[in-house]
Amino acid sequence: MEKSLAVNLSIEEAPKQWYNILPDLPEPLSEPKGDLSILDKTMVKECLKQEFSKDRFIDIPEEIQLLYQQIGRPRALFRAKNLEKLLDLPEGIELYYKSEFLSPTGSHKVNTAIAQAFYAKKEGFERLVTETGAGQWGSALSFAARLVGLKSTVYWVRAVYQWKEARRQLMELYGAKVFASPSQNTQVGRKLLKENSEHPGSLGIAISEGLEDAGKDEKAVYCLGSVLNHVLMHQTIIGLETKKQLEKIDRYPDVIISCLGGGSNFGGLALPFMHDVLKEGKKIKFIAAQSQGAANLQGEYRYNFADYAGFTPQLKMYTLGHQQEMPPIKGDGLRYHGCSPIISLLRSKGFIDTVAYPVDEKHVFERARLFVRGDRDLPGEGYLPAPESAYSIACAIDEAIKCKEEGLKKVIVFNISGHGFMDMPGYKEVLGLK
Amino acid sequence: MEKSLAVNLSIEEAPKQWYNILPDLPEPLSEPKGDLSILDKTMVKECLKQEFSKDRFIDIPEEIQLLYQQIGRPRALFRAKNLEKLLDLPEGIELYYKSEFLSPTGSHKVNTAIAQAFYAKKEGFERLVTETGAGQWGSALSFAARLVGLKSTVYWVRAVYQWKEARRQLMELYGAKVFASPSQNTQVGRKLLKENSEHPGSLGIAISEGLEDAGKDEKAVYCLGSVLNHVLMHQTIIGLETKKQLEKIDRYPDVIISCLGGGSNFGGLALPFMHDVLKEGKKIKFIAAQSQGAANLQGEYRYNFADYAGFTPQLKMYTLGHQQEMPPIKGDGLRYHGCSPIISLLRSKGFIDTVAYPVDEKHVFERARLFVRGDRDLPGEGYLPAPESAYSIACAIDEAIKCKEEGLKKVIVFNISGHGFMDMPGYKEVLGLK
Repeated sequence: MEKSLAVNLSIEEAPKQWYNILPDLPEPLSEPKGDLSILDKTMVKECLKQEFSKDRFIDIPEEIQLLYQQIGRPRALFRAKNLEKLLDLPEGIELYYKSEFLSPTGSHKVNTAIAQAFYAKKEGFERLVTETGAGQWGSALSFAARLVGLKSTVYWVRAVYQWKEARRQLMELYGAKVFASPSQNTQVGRKLLKENSEHPGSLGIAISEGLEDAGKDEKAVYCLGSVLNHVLMHQTIIGLETKKQLEKIDRYPDVIISCLGGGSNFGGLALPFMHDVLKEGKKIKFIAAQSQGAANLQGEYRYNFADYAGFTPQLKMYTLGHQQEMPPIKGDGLRYHGCSPIISLLRSKGFIDTVAYPVDEKHVFERARLFVRGDRDLPGEGYLPAPESAYSIACAIDEAIKCKEEGLKKVIVFNISGHGFMDMPGYKEVLGLK
Repeated sequence: MEKSLAVNLSIEEAPKQWYNILPDLPEPLSEPKGDLSILDKTMVKECLKQEFSKDRFIDIPEEIQLLYQQIGRPRALFRAKNLEKLLDLPEGIELYYKSEFLSPTGSHKVNTAIAQAFYAKKEGFERLVTETGAGQWGSALSFAARLVGLKSTVYWVRAVYQWKEARRQLMELYGAKVFASPSQNTQVGRKLLKENSEHPGSLGIAISEGLEDAGKDEKAVYCLGSVLNHVLMHQTIIGLETKKQLEKIDRYPDVIISCLGGGSNFGGLALPFMHDVLKEGKKIKFIAAQSQGAANLQGEYRYNFADYAGFTPQLKMYTLGHQQEMPPIKGDGLRYHGCSPIISLLRSKGFIDTVAYPVDEKHVFERARLFVRGDRDLPGEGYLPAPESAYSIACAIDEAIKCKEEGLKKVIVFNISGHGFMDMPGYKEVLGLK
């Protein structure tokens, strides 16, 4: 057993391929239904090709490998020694977290943003259009657009846009045009604003607006930050690195945990390990941490639109319904009606557990505070998580406590998808800070 | 020549000793003058011992090595490839920056905070007291106090306290008691508030308040975030890592740049290289980037107090005078009347150049924006610097342009001491963001 807290990889050890789980799924993924021409019209062609690829591994272009270096990859895996002591865990229960919060834009979203921007540039597009909920995806895509020399436009769920001024300014600093959604820019937006001029918006609505915008401009292309197969595949860089890091210290996970909205950070960490479960008979418990306000994995498993207006083809997924209203929460990145088809299929086959936390978010923010600060004279880990990542932390802590109570020895690995430096107003409100 | 952008070190390659420049200085450092008993009464004993040590290398205790791992050390050194292209630099001019912004609390300050907190705990103290300007030191010390199980109190320059609510909440999340300085807690504070109830404060005043507070409570100890020899020594971890990283890619710096307030991040990067200049005849140009509002290196080289009230012994240093009023700037970490005695001595002997930027900060924030965003169709580096670090960036860019104009080939290394995620209101004001 190594004493190290941080487990690092060298540049040379960085994964050179993404993992595509499609050929390894227990059954073929159901095809999207409806008019697929919107995909051809609005999406990056290489991403669309990857979306349906049956190749188990897809080379990461050398240019993207260099961009990954520029954003600080590979990222450290930390053993949460302080948290283990804080929870008074017996020997044999170990907690590890992946440090996606060390990204320049603040989250894991940058892993796929860079890939999508790179391919878009290569295909001659001039502008990237997208939606954002928490603001992390919007920041990542604005940043990635700049990295490869493209323009960007972001439709941002109004309920969040309003309390995250600093994150908006960051996107604008990267050169993005940022609109509160619903906006006056699109038919969809204007219609909703007419019904309610203070409409809080939702990810589904923002996607509709983005698609409408991109559809009207042949130099523009739409980029999605989650849900789709190729997005999850780009994110497998997280799990592939983590696997190597655990090997280095001779560990293998019994439990893998992350928060889940559309599924990109969860899938990014989980899928490379899911491979071992599906193909090598390994046993791992996967837990997706959600909000009761958007517990899409407890919805119905059926075909549904990915956006509010129904512009997209229908995807077979766990869904709450594409026009379901969901209460605003601080972990807005989790506030989406549907879950990625890949994760949904795996969930339907019993490979993924789920837990949903109350909408007041007190429990998850308290857990985040414990993670940051510790308790009594015992220190915490000190890294400030994004509200979404607070769900991962809450779930990992709850699971560790359960293992302790049941006398189980487990290696628990979780992802901290983003930092919370720009989310202090959320902490303030939920924890009642002055 | 390696193609890598990020140069990493493994845990095994991490430095195990700090570098103490005292025995290598061109002449002995002038002793502090006046009543030194305040030091015995208010300071950590091990730090005081280190302050006057003549040992060239001092072992980093294993516990601190582990804490360094926990905060993500060693940190990457980045080659600023995008910036080089942006400035259209010819082959032979290379820019490298150290990523101190990846710290959990947002800056390099954590490197010495951890050491001071560790020793304080070992010596039986229960509370750490300090001052802070930009808020980075206060965050780092609150965090470090928690890591080792101590309480903390922070006196924060009022002019900054007022516009950085999120950073105050972060300190409080770590468990710190934070007071706007001047405060009603101390005689010094009450006197100044009586004269001006809206007194903007200064680092010197906050130090006086902290010393008064710590002096009244034998369980409390005062920790300083800059200026003193032991603080700079703890920070040499930055330069020692950087040296190893440059060796790995077969490079040696011609120019070393960082911003300078009291001197801790500048010294941290520069001193291990200064060793080579003093002892091995290497030639390196060192440039300290300052504000014209607090250009202490252009002040007088003489004995002066380190605080406003004159509680401290007098130190031989470049100073503007300990009661000099300085205009508020966004890079408040640079707003201090005096410069570290070590750096001052080296400056007086001609080893350190200095540049000071106008108080409106437009140039440095524009340079920071260029660094983040790039220009035209050329991308920037994407990492958002703290206002103080913007001075390093501005200076590095200005120097690179000068080298280009003069046809010189240079390896330029600079430090980015902190991130700006909590400083967006500063960007907003100076750059006129909406």
